[in-house]
Amino acid sequence: MSDSQATRTETDSLGTIEIAADRLWGPQTERARRLFRIGSEVFPPPLIRAVGLQKRAAAEANKALGELPAEIADPIIAAAGEVAANERDADFPLPVWQTGSGTQTNMNANEVISNRANQSLGQPLGSRKPVHPNDHVNRGQSSNDSFPAVMHVAAAEAVTRRLVPGLEALHASLARRAEEWSGIVKLGRTHLMDAVPVTLGQEFAAWAMQVELGIIRVKAALPDLMRLPQGGTAAGTGLNTHPDFARAFAERMADLTGLPFVAHPNPFEGMMAHDAFVALQGAMSTVAVSLTKVANDVRLLGSGPRAGFSELVIPADGLSSSIMPGKTNPTQSEALTMVCAQVMGNTTTVTVAGMQGHLELNVFKPVIIQAVLQSATLLGDAAESFARNMVDKLEPNRDRIAENLAKSLMLVTALNPRIGYDKAVQIGKKALAENLTLRDAAERLGHVKGEDFDRWVRPEEMTRPGATLAGG
Amino acid sequence: MSDSQATRTETDSLGTIEIAADRLWGPQTERARRLFRIGSEVFPPPLIRAVGLQKRAAAEANKALGELPAEIADPIIAAAGEVAANERDADFPLPVWQTGSGTQTNMNANEVISNRANQSLGQPLGSRKPVHPNDHVNRGQSSNDSFPAVMHVAAAEAVTRRLVPGLEALHASLARRAEEWSGIVKLGRTHLMDAVPVTLGQEFAAWAMQVELGIIRVKAALPDLMRLPQGGTAAGTGLNTHPDFARAFAERMADLTGLPFVAHPNPFEGMMAHDAFVALQGAMSTVAVSLTKVANDVRLLGSGPRAGFSELVIPADGLSSSIMPGKTNPTQSEALTMVCAQVMGNTTTVTVAGMQGHLELNVFKPVIIQAVLQSATLLGDAAESFARNMVDKLEPNRDRIAENLAKSLMLVTALNPRIGYDKAVQIGKKALAENLTLRDAAERLGHVKGEDFDRWVRPEEMTRPGATLAGG
Amino acid sequence: MSDSQATRTETDSLGTIEIAADRLWGPQTERARRLFRIGSEVFPPPLIRAVGLQKRAAAEANKALGELPAEIADPIIAAAGEVAANERDADFPLPVWQTGSGTQTNMNANEVISNRANQSLGQPLGSRKPVHPNDHVNRGQSSNDSFPAVMHVAAAEAVTRRLVPGLEALHASLARRAEEWSGIVKLGRTHLMDAVPVTLGQEFAAWAMQVELGIIRVKAALPDLMRLPQGGTAAGTGLNTHPDFARAFAERMADLTGLPFVAHPNPFEGMMAHDAFVALQGAMSTVAVSLTKVANDVRLLGSGPRAGFSELVIPADGLSSSIMPGKTNPTQSEALTMVCAQVMGNTTTVTVAGMQGHLELNVFKPVIIQAVLQSATLLGDAAESFARNMVDKLEPNRDRIAENLAKSLMLVTALNPRIGYDKAVQIGKKALAENLTLRDAAERLGHVKGEDFDRWVRPEEMTRPGATLAGG
Amino acid sequence: MSDSQATRTETDSLGTIEIAADRLWGPQTERARRLFRIGSEVFPPPLIRAVGLQKRAAAEANKALGELPAEIADPIIAAAGEVAANERDADFPLPVWQTGSGTQTNMNANEVISNRANQSLGQPLGSRKPVHPNDHVNRGQSSNDSFPAVMHVAAAEAVTRRLVPGLEALHASLARRAEEWSGIVKLGRTHLMDAVPVTLGQEFAAWAMQVELGIIRVKAALPDLMRLPQGGTAAGTGLNTHPDFARAFAERMADLTGLPFVAHPNPFEGMMAHDAFVALQGAMSTVAVSLTKVANDVRLLGSGPRAGFSELVIPADGLSSSIMPGKTNPTQSEALTMVCAQVMGNTTTVTVAGMQGHLELNVFKPVIIQAVLQSATLLGDAAESFARNMVDKLEPNRDRIAENLAKSLMLVTALNPRIGYDKAVQIGKKALAENLTLRDAAERLGHVKGEDFDRWVRPEEMTRPGATLAGG
Repeated sequence: MSDSQATRTETDSLGTIEIAADRLWGPQTERARRLFRIGSEVFPPPLIRAVGLQKRAAAEANKALGELPAEIADPIIAAAGEVAANERDADFPLPVWQTGSGTQTNMNANEVISNRANQSLGQPLGSRKPVHPNDHVNRGQSSNDSFPAVMHVAAAEAVTRRLVPGLEALHASLARRAEEWSGIVKLGRTHLMDAVPVTLGQEFAAWAMQVELGIIRVKAALPDLMRLPQGGTAAGTGLNTHPDFARAFAERMADLTGLPFVAHPNPFEGMMAHDAFVALQGAMSTVAVSLTKVANDVRLLGSGPRAGFSELVIPADGLSSSIMPGKTNPTQSEALTMVCAQVMGNTTTVTVAGMQGHLELNVFKPVIIQAVLQSATLLGDAAESFARNMVDKLEPNRDRIAENLAKSLMLVTALNPRIGYDKAVQIGKKALAENLTLRDAAERLGHVKGEDFDRWVRPEEMTRPGATLAGG
Repeated sequence: MSDSQATRTETDSLGTIEIAADRLWGPQTERARRLFRIGSEVFPPPLIRAVGLQKRAAAEANKALGELPAEIADPIIAAAGEVAANERDADFPLPVWQTGSGTQTNMNANEVISNRANQSLGQPLGSRKPVHPNDHVNRGQSSNDSFPAVMHVAAAEAVTRRLVPGLEALHASLARRAEEWSGIVKLGRTHLMDAVPVTLGQEFAAWAMQVELGIIRVKAALPDLMRLPQGGTAAGTGLNTHPDFARAFAERMADLTGLPFVAHPNPFEGMMAHDAFVALQGAMSTVAVSLTKVANDVRLLGSGPRAGFSELVIPADGLSSSIMPGKTNPTQSEALTMVCAQVMGNTTTVTVAGMQGHLELNVFKPVIIQAVLQSATLLGDAAESFARNMVDKLEPNRDRIAENLAKSLMLVTALNPRIGYDKAVQIGKKALAENLTLRDAAERLGHVKGEDFDRWVRPEEMTRPGATLAGG
Repeated sequence: MSDSQATRTETDSLGTIEIAADRLWGPQTERARRLFRIGSEVFPPPLIRAVGLQKRAAAEANKALGELPAEIADPIIAAAGEVAANERDADFPLPVWQTGSGTQTNMNANEVISNRANQSLGQPLGSRKPVHPNDHVNRGQSSNDSFPAVMHVAAAEAVTRRLVPGLEALHASLARRAEEWSGIVKLGRTHLMDAVPVTLGQEFAAWAMQVELGIIRVKAALPDLMRLPQGGTAAGTGLNTHPDFARAFAERMADLTGLPFVAHPNPFEGMMAHDAFVALQGAMSTVAVSLTKVANDVRLLGSGPRAGFSELVIPADGLSSSIMPGKTNPTQSEALTMVCAQVMGNTTTVTVAGMQGHLELNVFKPVIIQAVLQSATLLGDAAESFARNMVDKLEPNRDRIAENLAKSLMLVTALNPRIGYDKAVQIGKKALAENLTLRDAAERLGHVKGEDFDRWVRPEEMTRPGATLAGG
Repeated sequence: MSDSQATRTETDSLGTIEIAADRLWGPQTERARRLFRIGSEVFPPPLIRAVGLQKRAAAEANKALGELPAEIADPIIAAAGEVAANERDADFPLPVWQTGSGTQTNMNANEVISNRANQSLGQPLGSRKPVHPNDHVNRGQSSNDSFPAVMHVAAAEAVTRRLVPGLEALHASLARRAEEWSGIVKLGRTHLMDAVPVTLGQEFAAWAMQVELGIIRVKAALPDLMRLPQGGTAAGTGLNTHPDFARAFAERMADLTGLPFVAHPNPFEGMMAHDAFVALQGAMSTVAVSLTKVANDVRLLGSGPRAGFSELVIPADGLSSSIMPGKTNPTQSEALTMVCAQVMGNTTTVTVAGMQGHLELNVFKPVIIQAVLQSATLLGDAAESFARNMVDKLEPNRDRIAENLAKSLMLVTALNPRIGYDKAVQIGKKALAENLTLRDAAERLGHVKGEDFDRWVRPEEMTRPGATLAGG
């Protein structure tokens, strides 16, 4: 705030304080701005949207239950709607690094909404009437239950609207490739070494299944998020709330979001702990593990173009090296794996934050929701980007695939059921040592006749059970 | 192996090697012993049991499908049964830190079982006939699908037989306390500071719900474990297996364990990745977060005995300080929170290990299952120990609880609905500054009459919604 | 970019592309903007500053070595200076989640600086002459050595200019308190239970030492940062650089920053791995562990005000509960411990990112430097905020301190050297069971006479060695 | 303990308890065995050795200071020596998961040593005289300072005697290879894609430098370990110790171990926090990051043998696939990277444990030292195993190296200084699209004459600065 800026003077229990004249926030927000000069991280728009939804649903519930008269409730509802529409983001200046209950952001909302409501009723900013930030906007609420409700709503929206769609896009893309390339027989690799044949489709199908299971895992974390601890107020007991407030609030929130929120059966649990978020983050971390593997495998198969595995051709995205002319890199694998590293780190953050609640309140709420929202957004965005800019544009390098397959000594495995493991070992070792084909080595050792070899060792038959058995 | 020990000489494809004459293992195990002199960690008995179960189920399936004759299968089944009964643990000397596919432990099993089977048929150790370690014991199998099957079986047993029962014991203990102490009204604390009243029962009920949800989360990870990738053999394709082997194996394993194992619909996924274990570990990490919070809260409420919160009396367990005579410490909270720290670290280990699979094979299998089994065992054991030795023996300190409650300035919160937040602030501040009771401060400020105060501010009414409202 | 915005058309090797007419960036940046629509995280100003410094130092070195003529070098130097002064931040729109070499940000710099230089020479944006982004701005450089150099410079500045000063402020504050309160004898607590006496000054001195050691640990990570891998170009070999470039560059950077940068003796190491940042992050994580402990202890001693430990009075910062009137919370402890949770998570991120380099290049550079800079900034800011807004404003609650000390049963420990441990146990147990003073219990058991007790058990003597010994 | 076992009855302040007649431990150990039935992890021999050293050094210091008469001190010193020689490991049955101060293990030592001392003096086990476990063996000590001293000693020995030698062996092996293969020019790879040339020696030299810096980082953590908090007794103040005890103890320990231990200048810091171990673990985690990279790169270059990068031939270690005959795998890379995953997890464990100290005591001591000792041992062992069984036995595949180098399109980079980046891009793109050599493409485009190309593009010249410049 520059010194020359016009200000208004407001008073709270600690005394007077100057606030920029055109800002909707009040003294509690202003004090917090000055006390927490830490970093540059502020809450993202989806969190501010949820703050607006929470205040709106609360006012609607209080109005319906007779706890707020319409002439107070209605301007609150309208002002909260503006916050929910992200029209007032500039009036939420506070850093993530504040009180661990999110009290400053809750008071920020109470102040912005009461000021905006009073403004709409022709009152000056800071008048605190007829709409009072605590008595009306915060009616029947505490930061201790409101901020958790905000966390639940923001996370549930991020998971359902950004993370799951992004993963579904990636799954669809991988599954389509699995179908398209189901007929391409190629070398499999175990321990990163040449192994027995698989199909390119089988590789994509396995990655697709990883993503599919990831979607299931993330969705399995949603029911926990649907239980809103709103109504617990200060310590979980529901002090100063209407007995029907929790239920009415959850119904309103379900209406506003289209998500099946319910009142928490034990709001203490949802305020003193945030295990629901730890569990969700754990599921997202598992997704990050899966996606790291997929991105890495694509990068490995695309390595080259001439002196790597070179079985996939990665798309020329127009982004080149600043020094090596014309170089094409797996940039989308890199962006995705960096996102995954961030998500895994966020899991440690959420774990450390989630474990340290004391008695009736966990006071690591802001850092938890920040990490969870970032994880959901990044994974959803990066999965979609990887689908569109990498998987959809990959091409198999059929010549190289055929060449790599033909060279493999591990085709000898198909002989195990015919001649036993020990003789098969001899064939493989001889072929490698004398740089022979397996067929030649088998014949020279007298273990297999050439025509039997040709019948028994057929890569295209080796990608399914049964075919190599003596009776197969 | 001491130099003077009697040995037998065995031969494999690399040449001859000396093995202690009385050991059931063979040349592959012996080579591995010498190549991996790393640390002292070996697999725990539950893992060796699962190795035996896997070999037994495989032999039974192969016998049923005609892939092994009864005269070969039956001695394998008997020998594998001994391994499953943990009667041959001393013949599994290999460290966790071996090949990342668990190949050495799979070959260790193949060698021990074939030797034991041959021994039972009157053949000397090392004869490799009539039962051959690869051709018969490992029939239709690879380490790459067998070791994952072992991992799934061992983890599923550990979760269902040690972890869940331990958590259920703790849940039952906490829930019983919640019921018993539902009538004890006490000070709540938020931000670790004096806050509005709750009941002691409410605190225990919230902890109980944390544990209850933890059980649900852990159980939700079980279906993934039920999909056995056995039948994928070397690379997931099922090369060299009978087409019905995977199904038959899973059915046999389900019979042997009483757990609903099925054949993996996409064995590639279960071999190239171990997301199922990452997800399970994530669920266990969430449990560790919950239990840390519970153990810490008990430690906080038990702090004292005279100069702490002192609302719970922790049991005198007979373990005292080595220097401070007669000191009683929350030793069970300490053991439990140390276990939780270990589990959280294991989550990082499993994450790092799970993400690094390459193409058809993840080669961090041993460290993954080691960490998962340790986590399940420690959490189960520590939860039960905490239930029996701490929760069951706690006592409320009723005098101190009453004294702490009476002192709290936050009872003023009950006045919000009557006189508004701003006047309530004035009362609280005056009481603190002038060391008055809230009642005196309220009267002196003229905000509330004494008799109204007595009617409106009743701690026992403050532990539920509605009672403090103007109409309440 | 809105559709209606005026654009210019540029051409690169992939074809033409539209760029907002007033933007200084070029086609590589524009392509990257479209290909990486992931999250909202962009590099912070200190990183962009370092980008500018890197390009300026490179141009100055090339000019001095005759690799760039003055008429090309000078406008580059001027434009890079604007970037280093953070005057062009708006022209660096790319997300952290880009190519893992930071190539897009390096090309962004090349494009902005060449455009700005050409602009200053009267050429239109996009002219690529006389100053060419690759041939001149990137002269003798690759993203692969330039971005690491940027990382080193940005981290070194953040550590020396933000982190260390913040920690030093906290250390000074704690040390001052240690001195001021060295005479206040109070109850010590071990296992969170009442224990033998300490002084309040001793507690603050121990915390101060933790911070002091933290400063030493962080500074110990600086020498690694001083080795700039600039000069390695594409793969570490220095291809296409002047043999003296690395040395000249490091000297220029040392001049520009006042920090003792040198040319890396093995630039491969500084490009293929970022262990220097993993080590620095590990040191910062250790600081986070220390600060969590300090913030927690202050929160514990400040718990109350009436029903907690209540030995410290935490400052009334004017930030109150939204529902509990007049409540004061340890908000600075909460902000600080949340920051520490973030830093610990960043350690996992940096670990996961640091371990995954492949051959000549680690491609997790952006996420590594993002996490490291955030950690340094947050720890520095939060440490200073905690010093100013918490430690400097704490007050001891002398009455409560005296009361807590007097009650402790652990004063009996002073009798060990006189009567032995076993008798001391009896005294302590009797006092607790019968709610006696230790003196009474000692007398009644006949173990110690009253006047001996008074001479032997003096709390103020118990805070140093020797005084309680038989000869003491 | 089987029911039929002969027992003796001992009495402590809680009452009587039965102990196996032939065991040296006493009632505190026996109670702990029954109260902590958690997991199977016990402390490793190096920790028990340090316990013995601690008790011996304490008795020697007390004797020298006149705090213990020779007739008591001498049998303690002798018995403690047996513990330090790992001759009494079987009498230390307690799990890691005990009291967080290590009190049970300290009392275990007090009991074993006093019993053994009394036994040597002809007294029965359990007599508690003339040598008393608390009054004599624990003289002037508390678990709270003794167990930390044990931790420091055990960790310092593990680092200096196992970790550093293992890393030095690996460094020497890598450095030798760097020297041997400095003349082999090969393809470099960035982003895992074909890039400009490097030498094989440069790759090994960079890895060697990573390890060299790791040794420096680990050694930098040692000074913290040298400060022994012994002498702080119960809470850091030194209550009940002789004023010279801390100094005398540290001198004795330095003599016994040959390591430069000193008395901690602020023993509070060394008891309430274990930042020294967090810092050491962070250094070891950095080493794990480095070694993961090295092991992965070796695995990548060794991939094949026919269809991978195939530039290194990994040793045939005789360990084969159970199904794929004759397969050779990078088993040592796998063991090493699994170890690294464990160490990284241990870092999370130590971080979580280190941050949770309360006031005068951190009560996560056992899990911290367990994780630190495991990390040091595993890294040391695995580094040495990797040196001996992998690096020492690697061979370059010179044919494949030459073939890969010749194919690379990135040799075009050498033309940048001659013809500019944009024309070089055209050449590279044309060569790739039309499957031409770079030389042909350059000529056809008219950008470079053939003889100039041959002079300017020489891979062997591209592995150092300067050679490709216009004046080069």
